[in-house]
Amino acid sequence: MTEAIDLKTKLSVFEDAWHPRIIGEANGQYLKLAKAEGHLEWHTHEEEDEVFLCLEGCLVLEMRDSEVTLEPGQLFVMPRGVEHRPRAEPTASILLLEPKQTQHLGKHGGPRAIDVEEQEWI
Amino acid sequence: MTEAIDLKTKLSVFEDAWHPRIIGEANGQYLKLAKAEGHLEWHTHEEEDEVFLCLEGCLVLEMRDSEVTLEPGQLFVMPRGVEHRPRAEPTASILLLEPKQTQHLGKHGGPRAIDVEEQEWI
Repeated sequence: MTEAIDLKTKLSVFEDAWHPRIIGEANGQYLKLAKAEGHLEWHTHEEEDEVFLCLEGCLVLEMRDSEVTLEPGQLFVMPRGVEHRPRAEPTASILLLEPKQTQHLGKHGGPRAIDVEEQEWI
Repeated sequence: MTEAIDLKTKLSVFEDAWHPRIIGEANGQYLKLAKAEGHLEWHTHEEEDEVFLCLEGCLVLEMRDSEVTLEPGQLFVMPRGVEHRPRAEPTASILLLEPKQTQHLGKHGGPRAIDVEEQEWI
């Protein structure tokens, strides 16, 4: 498909928080958009680094011994193996980059976890 | 390093066009920032997909049979094997994502090609 992917347009097609949608694929990684509100569960991706780019709002990435605050135009690479809990203050829109096999909430799972197979393209 | 990477701050530390700088690494990929002015050479990355996210200005990705125009907040995944020529109108700042081994101008090379080993972190 030779069309630009417009992030704002893609963000307008869904509302629910902590439910990433896939917008692109490159080199075995998915590019995803997500909305955030409040906090997600603590979790770890043992084998995958995860890139967070804040597009709107404010996203705090809590780790056990520190935290990083992302405002629009700021990104952070969460290294594999580091337990983290994303928290929006109060809401945020984010671009994520992670390997296709990355589990939403790592081994933690839980009711809000999205199965790898159930991820939607928008 | 548990600090946010601020894209505007990173963009302020260099001026030269078509000389990407590395700002992060995740899953064998580099995140890079580049400035663009005029056009780069036609080239192909045979084995690597390349993600372009426009941050400022306007970037046109020419392909042999089509082109894609990116404005701020728009991205495109250039599939591996597709010959392309990026062109800024008249300037642009972009975030790139590509595998660490990606050659700047593919096999095309040329005087403006940056060696993989000479890429700088900022």
